[in-house]
Amino acid sequence: MAVNKDQLSEIEELRGSKSETLRSTVPELENILYQPFEVLDHGFVRVIDYMGDDSAIVQSARVSYGKGTKQISNDKGLIKYLMRHRHSTPFEMCEIKFHIKLPIFIARQWIRHRTANVNEYSARYSILDKEFYIPSMENVAAQSTINNQGRGEVLSSDEAAEVISILKKDAEQTYANYETLLNENPNGESIDSSKPGVARELARMNLTLNTYTQWYWKIDLNNLLHFLALRADAHAQYEIRVYADIMMDIVKKWVPIAADAFEDYRIGGTEVSAKEINLLKKLLKGEKASFEDEGISKREWSELQKKFDLK
Amino acid sequence: MAVNKDQLSEIEELRGSKSETLRSTVPELENILYQPFEVLDHGFVRVIDYMGDDSAIVQSARVSYGKGTKQISNDKGLIKYLMRHRHSTPFEMCEIKFHIKLPIFIARQWIRHRTANVNEYSARYSILDKEFYIPSMENVAAQSTINNQGRGEVLSSDEAAEVISILKKDAEQTYANYETLLNENPNGESIDSSKPGVARELARMNLTLNTYTQWYWKIDLNNLLHFLALRADAHAQYEIRVYADIMMDIVKKWVPIAADAFEDYRIGGTEVSAKEINLLKKLLKGEKASFEDEGISKREWSELQKKFDLK
Amino acid sequence: MAVNKDQLSEIEELRGSKSETLRSTVPELENILYQPFEVLDHGFVRVIDYMGDDSAIVQSARVSYGKGTKQISNDKGLIKYLMRHRHSTPFEMCEIKFHIKLPIFIARQWIRHRTANVNEYSARYSILDKEFYIPSMENVAAQSTINNQGRGEVLSSDEAAEVISILKKDAEQTYANYETLLNENPNGESIDSSKPGVARELARMNLTLNTYTQWYWKIDLNNLLHFLALRADAHAQYEIRVYADIMMDIVKKWVPIAADAFEDYRIGGTEVSAKEINLLKKLLKGEKASFEDEGISKREWSELQKKFDLK
Amino acid sequence: MAVNKDQLSEIEELRGSKSETLRSTVPELENILYQPFEVLDHGFVRVIDYMGDDSAIVQSARVSYGKGTKQISNDKGLIKYLMRHRHSTPFEMCEIKFHIKLPIFIARQWIRHRTANVNEYSARYSILDKEFYIPSMENVAAQSTINNQGRGEVLSSDEAAEVISILKKDAEQTYANYETLLNENPNGESIDSSKPGVARELARMNLTLNTYTQWYWKIDLNNLLHFLALRADAHAQYEIRVYADIMMDIVKKWVPIAADAFEDYRIGGTEVSAKEINLLKKLLKGEKASFEDEGISKREWSELQKKFDLK
Repeated sequence: MAVNKDQLSEIEELRGSKSETLRSTVPELENILYQPFEVLDHGFVRVIDYMGDDSAIVQSARVSYGKGTKQISNDKGLIKYLMRHRHSTPFEMCEIKFHIKLPIFIARQWIRHRTANVNEYSARYSILDKEFYIPSMENVAAQSTINNQGRGEVLSSDEAAEVISILKKDAEQTYANYETLLNENPNGESIDSSKPGVARELARMNLTLNTYTQWYWKIDLNNLLHFLALRADAHAQYEIRVYADIMMDIVKKWVPIAADAFEDYRIGGTEVSAKEINLLKKLLKGEKASFEDEGISKREWSELQKKFDLK
Repeated sequence: MAVNKDQLSEIEELRGSKSETLRSTVPELENILYQPFEVLDHGFVRVIDYMGDDSAIVQSARVSYGKGTKQISNDKGLIKYLMRHRHSTPFEMCEIKFHIKLPIFIARQWIRHRTANVNEYSARYSILDKEFYIPSMENVAAQSTINNQGRGEVLSSDEAAEVISILKKDAEQTYANYETLLNENPNGESIDSSKPGVARELARMNLTLNTYTQWYWKIDLNNLLHFLALRADAHAQYEIRVYADIMMDIVKKWVPIAADAFEDYRIGGTEVSAKEINLLKKLLKGEKASFEDEGISKREWSELQKKFDLK
Repeated sequence: MAVNKDQLSEIEELRGSKSETLRSTVPELENILYQPFEVLDHGFVRVIDYMGDDSAIVQSARVSYGKGTKQISNDKGLIKYLMRHRHSTPFEMCEIKFHIKLPIFIARQWIRHRTANVNEYSARYSILDKEFYIPSMENVAAQSTINNQGRGEVLSSDEAAEVISILKKDAEQTYANYETLLNENPNGESIDSSKPGVARELARMNLTLNTYTQWYWKIDLNNLLHFLALRADAHAQYEIRVYADIMMDIVKKWVPIAADAFEDYRIGGTEVSAKEINLLKKLLKGEKASFEDEGISKREWSELQKKFDLK
Repeated sequence: MAVNKDQLSEIEELRGSKSETLRSTVPELENILYQPFEVLDHGFVRVIDYMGDDSAIVQSARVSYGKGTKQISNDKGLIKYLMRHRHSTPFEMCEIKFHIKLPIFIARQWIRHRTANVNEYSARYSILDKEFYIPSMENVAAQSTINNQGRGEVLSSDEAAEVISILKKDAEQTYANYETLLNENPNGESIDSSKPGVARELARMNLTLNTYTQWYWKIDLNNLLHFLALRADAHAQYEIRVYADIMMDIVKKWVPIAADAFEDYRIGGTEVSAKEINLLKKLLKGEKASFEDEGISKREWSELQKKFDLK
């Protein structure tokens, strides 16, 4: 289980104490505040705090004295306009803080987004939990033969079972040796009191990359949307996409108007190059046209065909 | 007046509507939320929103499931430790949003702090108010003869009055011509309907640098403290220091423990170079020592004397 | 003139002394190194230094030991691929440093790009030159009636002349008073030795926003391209666009392959929303379709018509 | 060995081809350009490119037209002044690019410095080399009993040998299974052609955290010095400190004046809190004083004693 009993009761305590505030508040987000959403086998995403809502975007775009909102219809139009024309600074005026538990190899991808604030659980200071990510059968896939950095067909159940068994065995053995190196059991007592334990900052190097870590991660809405555009995308690795998908649902609760515009313009939208515009113009006029004549590569053309159902 | 009647009533409206929240809340800051603190002759600082409190610093440093706080005394110790050792990331977990009105030449200094989110009132889109900063008599000072980028003695009242009169006259005249260029009065009606007005993005170039602008400015606590360390400092220009001073008071209401540590370690503290340490060591032992022998420059020595009451 | 005789001879001196280097070098850029390109009436852009070239993008994308380049055709393909899929980090591996002279109201737009390094000429420390931007006749335009933040028709020559005359007179008068306040002539001698001058940090507030300032501005290629995408765009204010246009020419000399990909995918390309994709799909199949049915606004539809020559 | 024969010959090729440049050039740095400095058992640091030198700091601080340097003595004074007063932006005008090979658990610390540009070798796209960090005997230490995040006494040689043996065995076994999962030998041929290999993005999770990775890392001098201040410090983990030490030597070759000022003011210097200043003032006057009376904690006092040789 991702969160243990003690942790759950700490969370319950937080959810039990309400305060009054003059700040803008989002009831949909309050409903899920602090609660862990499970991801993968031991991971989770929790919203810890937030600042602002849809009307805060409008309020700062207008540099207003009161609320952003005069009429919801106006706000909606403005937010759509800002999203469409990539006026990104008003979206930076909303902020959200997550507590996330995730495998280390995914944390290494995640941290490449530099515009966030992070505090990670320190394995120099503390001992990591005995939790590793082991993919489920349907997520054990072969190397893609098309995409050099992606995965292709799911393996047969026999093959997948073998993969899972290797991953489990190695993770468990290296963790057992991590304990041996530390010479310390999970309660902080030494195993063999006649020997010192190795420094935690050294012992951790024996762990495998699917070991779970956790962090507080705080980011503004603009940069979060950028993260989601990349990580909720079909080309993102499955193990990070599942986090992004849950966070996208959270964004919908938090700033429904901005989320809607984001889905129309970014997630569902596409970019078309100058050469592709030329080709599309001709096709739209019913003229003859070929990708070769426009200087478009085979690969671009095949992507364009998919985007616009072209033959 | 910095804020007009309509604006005040918008602010009052915001202060009238409370919500319930599960987020951590700071009553001292709620008390002043949205309210303008006047600065200079037409400027102000207002807190628009905030996220986190002292315990949020602790909570993220510990990557905890519940509140940061177990015992206030522990939290205090941890926050002091983090400040002392410049572990800055936990302080990034608190965020605050201000609405600020300030003269353009000060805005130009301010914006050099790049780690904030900003939405400024657009003079391409809207017409700037007829408000300029005119220093009061006691703030009209001569160029410093010691510090090439500072001010020295206050001018005599006659001289100051002349300076003020020049600043006023020029600001008023250039603003009047701004209106002429725009061909538009403050109500948005054209002055001479037979002529077009010049584009706002052009007309604005006729304004003087003491014209007021305003912006929403959002920043995390760590970067805010860095801003305050530089701008609440005696070497900062008076016209930005008055903003920093008010914001320091706000920080004290918001995160009193962190503010206290900041004042001890940063504001009231100092840095000592390797060479200066050597000198101080000798002096503390009662040995003879001279700054020249230690390779310390005259200027450094004179600064060191001030810091430690040395002769 | 943007650059005076002494400055030109300093520049000539720099251009006179060559060194040998093992670093990757771009002859096309060496040809123009240090030389000022004039912009507006007194502004300029100079390249001061650079790091990397097209092959550095490839080299870092491949994390290679030698040069990026194996075959130019491969490199070209990879750079196009990176641009197309917005893999931006390899473009961050090239860096360029400019010296730029520009009017203050343009500097205020420019500085909003936060991911650059900047050192600006300090008007607290030094006296600003007597140089203001005065638009030429053909650049004095009315407020746009369509675009709230743009300019529309060029004014008649009589009207433009009046505008120019106002701008000139006000700039000259406020500058003359700036000198009076400073009580200092351009040679640094006091005008009236019986009086002190006002501190430079105060006197500057009397200047108008079209006064020229200058700075060193250093940025990586990825962020420079982002700047150019926004500022070389038709919606950018003319007075910043002319700088962007010159910098785009410089980028073509520096990294021709990346510049080419940028023009195809970014500058000449466009974004299409999910709803617009649906509409285009139908049109491409020869089916009937209307923007209203697809939930596309009038404004979006009119933009789409322009992009794809639709009726 | 950190770098193989083929890689060395690629490096030799780069070192063989000189160009002429008008840019400022640092012969001391040219001497070592591209060459790998070995770190730990398989790691290295190589300088790939650089921009600027000591005089570039001065040049941008002065926003000058020619070289920064008029007289070396002046430049030295200015650089020391800038360092002392933490005027950091001129130091941002120098940039350096490294190629670094390092263990993953160190890469995870390193990447927390967000103000750099990074391209890491992709284990989604490529297969990681069979190289793991195994500490040498004298670096296998016990957990510190004082510092919760540090290491204490070196283990006895028997104990150290056991630790090393565990680390080696586990790294080798998990790497062997990594190959089994990939079903691919180092030459890219499948091991068992009747079976598909698992996707590289999945297989990599079986590796231990001491596996080596590599990246291109580009940073400006100001942020590099900040990195070095933290990572060349005695409290930094040994395995990152050795990289920092080598980079400090490189900085000395590159910008000797700035490096010197950095060592005096930052590395060798210290910070003193307001309360500690009070205490030192009294001691310097020969007055009686106690840390308790000044509100200084025991821990702070003990640190202060060390800094100033106090009893």
